[in-house]
Amino acid sequence: MAIVTFTTDFGQHDHYVAAMKGVVLQIAPKSSLIDVTHQIERHNALQAAFIIRQILPSFPRGTIHVAVIDPGVGTSRRIVAAQYAGQIIIAPDNGIVSLVHRDAPLDALREVANRRLFVGQQPSATFHGRDVMAPVAGHLSRGAKLTDVGPATDRLEILDLPTPRRNPDRSIEGEVIYVDGFGNLVTNLGREDLAQTFAARPDAHVWLGDRDVGVLRQTYGQVEPDEALALIGSVDALEIAVNRGSAAEHFEVDIGAAVVVR
Amino acid sequence: MAIVTFTTDFGQHDHYVAAMKGVVLQIAPKSSLIDVTHQIERHNALQAAFIIRQILPSFPRGTIHVAVIDPGVGTSRRIVAAQYAGQIIIAPDNGIVSLVHRDAPLDALREVANRRLFVGQQPSATFHGRDVMAPVAGHLSRGAKLTDVGPATDRLEILDLPTPRRNPDRSIEGEVIYVDGFGNLVTNLGREDLAQTFAARPDAHVWLGDRDVGVLRQTYGQVEPDEALALIGSVDALEIAVNRGSAAEHFEVDIGAAVVVR
Amino acid sequence: MAIVTFTTDFGQHDHYVAAMKGVVLQIAPKSSLIDVTHQIERHNALQAAFIIRQILPSFPRGTIHVAVIDPGVGTSRRIVAAQYAGQIIIAPDNGIVSLVHRDAPLDALREVANRRLFVGQQPSATFHGRDVMAPVAGHLSRGAKLTDVGPATDRLEILDLPTPRRNPDRSIEGEVIYVDGFGNLVTNLGREDLAQTFAARPDAHVWLGDRDVGVLRQTYGQVEPDEALALIGSVDALEIAVNRGSAAEHFEVDIGAAVVVR
Repeated sequence: MAIVTFTTDFGQHDHYVAAMKGVVLQIAPKSSLIDVTHQIERHNALQAAFIIRQILPSFPRGTIHVAVIDPGVGTSRRIVAAQYAGQIIIAPDNGIVSLVHRDAPLDALREVANRRLFVGQQPSATFHGRDVMAPVAGHLSRGAKLTDVGPATDRLEILDLPTPRRNPDRSIEGEVIYVDGFGNLVTNLGREDLAQTFAARPDAHVWLGDRDVGVLRQTYGQVEPDEALALIGSVDALEIAVNRGSAAEHFEVDIGAAVVVR
Repeated sequence: MAIVTFTTDFGQHDHYVAAMKGVVLQIAPKSSLIDVTHQIERHNALQAAFIIRQILPSFPRGTIHVAVIDPGVGTSRRIVAAQYAGQIIIAPDNGIVSLVHRDAPLDALREVANRRLFVGQQPSATFHGRDVMAPVAGHLSRGAKLTDVGPATDRLEILDLPTPRRNPDRSIEGEVIYVDGFGNLVTNLGREDLAQTFAARPDAHVWLGDRDVGVLRQTYGQVEPDEALALIGSVDALEIAVNRGSAAEHFEVDIGAAVVVR
Repeated sequence: MAIVTFTTDFGQHDHYVAAMKGVVLQIAPKSSLIDVTHQIERHNALQAAFIIRQILPSFPRGTIHVAVIDPGVGTSRRIVAAQYAGQIIIAPDNGIVSLVHRDAPLDALREVANRRLFVGQQPSATFHGRDVMAPVAGHLSRGAKLTDVGPATDRLEILDLPTPRRNPDRSIEGEVIYVDGFGNLVTNLGREDLAQTFAARPDAHVWLGDRDVGVLRQTYGQVEPDEALALIGSVDALEIAVNRGSAAEHFEVDIGAAVVVR
């Protein structure tokens, strides 16, 4: 049986996450259940898309990722099961797969519609995580085929993602797309996006708005404590950090802040 | 080996939850361990009773639920193991099983007293979750019988639960008994409690105090974003919600608020 | 395969903990993964040392504890794997093992340096939890020997720990070293530290600074609700508590507060 991960905006105050896990274990008792996070900002599909994108490389083929950020529950929004590089994401079709979709090959895409896999005769109107997504994950973990969950589809909601802009002078512009719990500012400038700029100008500086964060560093320890730096972080993208501190607090910026390397 | 779930008021800052899990795994290494929540309000047995009631239907027969909300630890309060519909709840005898007890048949009730199952010669005076409840759960998971944990008893503390009141005009009155992390207001009016009212008056309105929440809806999407509605929620009871918002904030009410359907 | 526990200062907002777990499961799919806490105060190795010390007695031989409180990531700080009483702790060499080291026999100490066990060709500069410690834990869980992780070493960073002071009058002085989520004040005065004082003066009082907390009690229930007491707590050390309340709030003290038994 498979690994099943859970990413939600449920928080950890209620029984909702455990209810989903119980449903999976009823169907596939030997699944390995992993919490990714339940602290996605309420209804923030873009944040969930970032998290799901980052988590995939650490999991093996066959892993099933259940992502329940579902403001449209009970409406006609669809639920999809999308397979990328051998891993399956089950989520409402509201853009949660957007970043994975941009970066990884889509193996297969199905609409989750086979009611025989759901819990009960009639799923609740408000908790498809428990009544639809969890049991489908359980059946897939137990060995059901992706083709069993419902018909093939080629419709998939993709969010507008901020894309880096390369300028004639080889500078490159992007923005902060995620702020982690340490206050590190993760940008949408990937390692490869930066290569051309740094090939032309190895001493280019990273700018956060009009503030100079200096040259690209390798590790936190290259600057003093409480000093800001820019480096390629653990998600293989440009991050702005403060050694032993919080860049979000230091710079008082948030998602959307402009970053330029020139 | 079985599924063992954990519901506590411990928070997640300390090592206490992990200590309980380690004890279970020492005895029953292949148990599946599931966190329900560790954010029960400190010493709030009624809140725990609600959570335990909601979680049972999502778990299979044989599951063992450990609930440690234990203001009386170290006093003469007893610990009980109560089996309902094939699932066992191990908890201090302070009312944690009250809602399950109301709704499900009691298979068996035992006092947890067999010291040979406990950790160490002398349990600590302050942490029976680790020294008594966890090892007993471990032994049950490993195959011990419920009769092994201690003598049969017929004493069981049951909390005063607010009960719905049906009026001669077929209106029905209840109250908010739980507020979830989304701000949904869960009431003590179950689907069946409402049936008679709605049979007589399909267009009856739900009132929260003197505020009209409208007719009973099926799904969030039937009202506009930020608009309030009443519907049967995922725990099969009347809930008052705000589409993509928080009813608790919208109405500024809390547990105990009066709800009438008329 | 083994139990692998995780203690970090990552919080639960990001994908970092799940990334470590995915890496472990890729290598050792049947490991039992246990969260100890992810709410260690950022970069507080002493707090992590306390937690790791407390958790060990509840886990079996063979357990692998991964502790990632790592302000020096990306500098020349080493990572160590230290075995105490059959359990292995993998952590940056920044003092996290200090309390275990004081209390338990060191079986073996290795520097984590075998790059063939790491994730990828080049670990990230900022996340050795995922790229170094997790895969090493996975290989150990799968059966690798401690000698496989790198060379033996006898260097180990040990934090300055506050030690109890025994006075000629047989009074003993210590301090608060941990405040738990309930507000209990855990001191560095162990059960055995107190034995001599209480042998000479069974009616000695516990003082928190200049406030008399009374004689040593056995259980919370020996005092009234909201009343303070001192007792031997679940970690086998003197604790100052308030029955059904918070001693930290009641006394408005924090770590470092002086405690005397005389």
